[in-house]
Amino acid sequence: MGRIVVEVMPKPEILDPQGKAVMGSLPRIGLTGFTGVRQGRRFELAVEGPVTQEHLDDAERAASTLLSNPIIEDVVSVHPLQED
Amino acid sequence: MGRIVVEVMPKPEILDPQGKAVMGSLPRIGLTGFTGVRQGRRFELAVEGPVTQEHLDDAERAASTLLSNPIIEDVVSVHPLQED
Repeated sequence: MGRIVVEVMPKPEILDPQGKAVMGSLPRIGLTGFTGVRQGRRFELAVEGPVTQEHLDDAERAASTLLSNPIIEDVVSVHPLQED
Repeated sequence: MGRIVVEVMPKPEILDPQGKAVMGSLPRIGLTGFTGVRQGRRFELAVEGPVTQEHLDDAERAASTLLSNPIIEDVVSVHPLQED
């Protein structure tokens, strides 16, 4: 079974309240070395057999329509998962 | 400015209603070649200057405490972001 990873992040100019909440909580566990946090989403799409170019094309289409909102989010990566 | 990516996914044995919802919607856009979808989270942690081993150690600690729930989620990756 192959898998394709799709990574989606809020656009840089878009407010990211979840990332801000994480950023505000880092000092509580003693971590003060980070200057910002952004939170996005990571999808794994499974396919039968090995990942083909057609699967990747379909994943690109899913990424830009169903898995992200192009107004406020960027698809930062669509790639086959490297299995261990 | 360096950035560290933290990737978190629901454990395989845990139900993933968001992934299931995406899976159910794929046929609506004509995509029937995927056999499963899992939805997790992707964080970007920013640091001043280049990413150091200390930053990565701190990110590992944030990943396993603040950014994920170890009961139901796996931290699948903590790595420096390759800038273009």
